[in-house]
Amino acid sequence: MYTLLKQEGKARRGQFETVHGTVQTPVFMNVGTSAAIKGAVSSLDLKEVGCQVELSNTYHLHIRPGDDLIKDMGGLHRFMNWDRPILTDSGGFQVFSLSKLRKITEEGVHFQSHVDGKRIFMGPEESMQIQSNLGSTIAMAFDECIENPAPYKYVKDSCERTYRWLERCKKEMDRLNSLPDTVNPHQMLWGINQGGTYEDLRIWHMNEIKKLDLPGYAIGGLAVGESAEEMYRIIDAVEPHMPKDKPRYLMGVGTPINILEAVDRGIDFFDCVITSRNARHANLFTDKGVLNLNNNKFARDDKPLMEGCTCPACKNYSRSYIRHLFKAKEMLGMRLCVLHNLHFYNDLMQQIRDNLDNGTFKEFKEEKVKAFSGRV
Amino acid sequence: MYTLLKQEGKARRGQFETVHGTVQTPVFMNVGTSAAIKGAVSSLDLKEVGCQVELSNTYHLHIRPGDDLIKDMGGLHRFMNWDRPILTDSGGFQVFSLSKLRKITEEGVHFQSHVDGKRIFMGPEESMQIQSNLGSTIAMAFDECIENPAPYKYVKDSCERTYRWLERCKKEMDRLNSLPDTVNPHQMLWGINQGGTYEDLRIWHMNEIKKLDLPGYAIGGLAVGESAEEMYRIIDAVEPHMPKDKPRYLMGVGTPINILEAVDRGIDFFDCVITSRNARHANLFTDKGVLNLNNNKFARDDKPLMEGCTCPACKNYSRSYIRHLFKAKEMLGMRLCVLHNLHFYNDLMQQIRDNLDNGTFKEFKEEKVKAFSGRV
Repeated sequence: MYTLLKQEGKARRGQFETVHGTVQTPVFMNVGTSAAIKGAVSSLDLKEVGCQVELSNTYHLHIRPGDDLIKDMGGLHRFMNWDRPILTDSGGFQVFSLSKLRKITEEGVHFQSHVDGKRIFMGPEESMQIQSNLGSTIAMAFDECIENPAPYKYVKDSCERTYRWLERCKKEMDRLNSLPDTVNPHQMLWGINQGGTYEDLRIWHMNEIKKLDLPGYAIGGLAVGESAEEMYRIIDAVEPHMPKDKPRYLMGVGTPINILEAVDRGIDFFDCVITSRNARHANLFTDKGVLNLNNNKFARDDKPLMEGCTCPACKNYSRSYIRHLFKAKEMLGMRLCVLHNLHFYNDLMQQIRDNLDNGTFKEFKEEKVKAFSGRV
Repeated sequence: MYTLLKQEGKARRGQFETVHGTVQTPVFMNVGTSAAIKGAVSSLDLKEVGCQVELSNTYHLHIRPGDDLIKDMGGLHRFMNWDRPILTDSGGFQVFSLSKLRKITEEGVHFQSHVDGKRIFMGPEESMQIQSNLGSTIAMAFDECIENPAPYKYVKDSCERTYRWLERCKKEMDRLNSLPDTVNPHQMLWGINQGGTYEDLRIWHMNEIKKLDLPGYAIGGLAVGESAEEMYRIIDAVEPHMPKDKPRYLMGVGTPINILEAVDRGIDFFDCVITSRNARHANLFTDKGVLNLNNNKFARDDKPLMEGCTCPACKNYSRSYIRHLFKAKEMLGMRLCVLHNLHFYNDLMQQIRDNLDNGTFKEFKEEKVKAFSGRV
């Protein structure tokens, strides 16, 4: 399903075929936590800003509106009117970052809903069942996500358990895909590499999960407390052990510079909430670095957020107007900034792919890393 | 500038030419208080939902971002990227409904900003100066807006003063339009009829302001406490005294039924915040009456908000999905509902115009008043 089209150093230009269409990689997935993108952005808007893959959160959708409801409505694609690929995370990250009073056993995790305090149990089977109800294109394995740094012994035990959970995920996904009323019988399960910041654990774990021959592999548990340099070190250590013929996904990463560095280290898929989180604070990504629209100097600035940008915000509105919308607490301000930031990321990935096609990625990367370090 | 194309009873089908294009009447103006429509709706979206005239609020824009800034940015049309007509209110209504510690004198009104408590003075000249800086197509006269009911003596004194203020508005607007750096030298001033719920005061006032030969006249001070029947009674009393060759605007009205009844009584222009206010509470206008999306019965309802509707929400999303967005507090829910409600109103006005063209307005009105009284 994954075809490596071209390589420059470790950087990979590829494409990935799914039942919901072909994804050109490297790709940045646009995050729609609760089947909607923060900032009043719809599935139609996603097409306009060049999104290839939408990412939704299993934990959030399980709690509200409930995955059973989404299954009744024909699955997540139909529910949110999006016909391109969807990746759902496993719920694991949110169970460990959002929920209260959690208790981990070999079976799975007991925790309380962050919405109403209700007691919930989620293990590998439950996560697969929820994701099967959602009918996403790609389901992620249920894993434990540890904050960095963590003690070696804890990380070792945890990633051994995460491996056993992955075996259970695979078995359960195979069973669910064969059920007559399943939403998407071609749903894929991707494995997640863990091991904290310990290279030996990372490599051991990667080699174990590789044996399960899954259609894709992610590196999880990064961008959760460690430095960018540590993150790059872990990628450098794990990458040689990842299958060449499968897509690689670096979960929850990151800034434009992080993405350029990770593509350069052989990563194909990315996702991050930074696009909407920054937009919420009127922080815009531009080809000259970050622009903070709260700055007084933009009050009478007639220029678009980023000159030359073709996003719906830049084509139609000025910095002055959008800044006013933020000050006046008009939701439209956030919407325009989210549209811009998503377009910026999707366009950056397009430029990365073009430069890989042309064999000019190295120069492109160096030039952009320098430019993105600035401030407008 | 106003051409009466056809009449059915008192109901008028007309068109109104402005420097920003021709308005087909009867028309519902879409409210964008702070140069943006509540619910993350942009000027581009307004075109998609069939808006002919946008309405912005002088008081809000004076306070934030400041009309001097908007003038520096080329006026409100350029600032918000809207090339069709804009009507600005005078600020009077907000001074009387939003601000604190107000004191009325012959000169004007002293009050405190509802945002930062700053002391502000606004009189007829100041209101015209602010609206001139905004450069709207239609500027409204600065008046005192009284809650109904109010004592006869108070209303009489108030509407006599409002008349004197109107003379000052006209003089100031003429002066501003002749200045070399004015944003819109063709800015129109419309007069506002006041007189509370007293027919004799209303008629006296209408006859006085008519003498100033302004390009349009509004009925103000209704829908502020009195019943719909009282409102219709006042319209019936005032309408015979309004010029036939000028557009008539019923300020701040109203529900779809109010609009049908007022069109039937000879009104041409309307505006109301009910479209976005109802949307905020997930209350949708439909051809079968109001639909409250919070109702449990819509949780798994795959139908659009209103069957047969061609708005961006109904063409793409289900009741079930939009209801979920509200429950999950996703801003997209409100955006979709505002788009639907605005489209509903603009489409209702189109149907009213079509039926006036066809001479079938009476039957249409009776059928719709009945249908709109229902609940979905």
